[in-house]
Amino acid sequence: MKRVKVSNNVIRRLPRYLRKLDELTENGVSRISSFELGQQLGLTPSQIRQDFSCFGEFGQQGYGYNVPALRTQIASILGMDRGFNAILVGVGNIGRALVDNFSFAEWGFNLTAAFDIKPELIGTNFHGVPIYSNDELVDYIHSNRVDVAVLCVPKEAAIPVTKALTENGIEAIWNFTNVELTEPNSPTIVENIHFSDSLLSLSYYVSERLDEKAAKSARAEKQA
Amino acid sequence: MKRVKVSNNVIRRLPRYLRKLDELTENGVSRISSFELGQQLGLTPSQIRQDFSCFGEFGQQGYGYNVPALRTQIASILGMDRGFNAILVGVGNIGRALVDNFSFAEWGFNLTAAFDIKPELIGTNFHGVPIYSNDELVDYIHSNRVDVAVLCVPKEAAIPVTKALTENGIEAIWNFTNVELTEPNSPTIVENIHFSDSLLSLSYYVSERLDEKAAKSARAEKQA
Repeated sequence: MKRVKVSNNVIRRLPRYLRKLDELTENGVSRISSFELGQQLGLTPSQIRQDFSCFGEFGQQGYGYNVPALRTQIASILGMDRGFNAILVGVGNIGRALVDNFSFAEWGFNLTAAFDIKPELIGTNFHGVPIYSNDELVDYIHSNRVDVAVLCVPKEAAIPVTKALTENGIEAIWNFTNVELTEPNSPTIVENIHFSDSLLSLSYYVSERLDEKAAKSARAEKQA
Repeated sequence: MKRVKVSNNVIRRLPRYLRKLDELTENGVSRISSFELGQQLGLTPSQIRQDFSCFGEFGQQGYGYNVPALRTQIASILGMDRGFNAILVGVGNIGRALVDNFSFAEWGFNLTAAFDIKPELIGTNFHGVPIYSNDELVDYIHSNRVDVAVLCVPKEAAIPVTKALTENGIEAIWNFTNVELTEPNSPTIVENIHFSDSLLSLSYYVSERLDEKAAKSARAEKQA
């Protein structure tokens, strides 16, 4: 695929489009206008057309978008058809909950192996994924294709494990440790699930709402 | 607090500043210039000064930022000192893993109650949080202050439970269900933890990297 540099904001919207298209498909909708799609997503039609124009021409004037075709195209842009392999590093609570609840396969990923230090886990299977010892991690990376490491180790292990991964050729990490893994400008691709960042953003919006309400009732009192 | 409208991009950076300031404090750093802070975060000093200027004057020309004072101010902007109450709705794998691994108190939240439908859970405690029946949810909301509902129910329950919550006065939801909960322009504040969106963004960046490498080696071959 030929690539132009696309802004992060556009890239971040692609998975949302995909989820919406899946929902439309489930509801039997096979064709949608950019106007209608925009309404359902809280975006303007021109925003949507602009986003898609980064990747070529998708819709048809007067017809709108073919839902399954657009879904296929976006899935392909996102790399869902590339058969990426992932490994899970750290099979504690978070790692377990993730594999219990999240279907890697649904999003195009094969979870091929997991690694932990606990002797009672090593040699067992978890949802069909073999659990190996951390000691075997480097060997595994060298003898298997691994596109993404899913990092679910305890906080204190985050940096040393990241070093071991990147020094042995891992270029992308899905990070659940809440630790900033790399220096700025590191070539490693890191995608963070920061629970605290998410909760604190919510906390900000709730605070803002409360302050607005307080200001409003103060104004009303003044006027009374 | 008097509030000006602040862009979402700025709001999203505040928790990152907070984490960095906590890390600096841990390392015994009590004062930092915007230049140094920027280097550590991969931002320009002027970006940082601009972000903070949304909330007043924080630093001092020639001195930089006082780390603990700045931390206190950002925590306050984020509402961490407001004693927000949260309830957990759905004590399955994701809900359990969250409470096992994530400290609500660390971020200023009291987790006061949890709700589930499973008879064997109801009446028990989980990390000191009492688990009630879903049937008691509405009563609980009306007789206790609840600022945020943490939604960890199965997919099929996401929409009906959201309806019950919002119709009974809940204005903010931390959403782990991977379901789009509200219509656009809904007054409910929803903050999503979308695992799939995060993984798919990562997938995009990995694909981009691979395509760049392929293009590079194709160019090299042509020249050879």
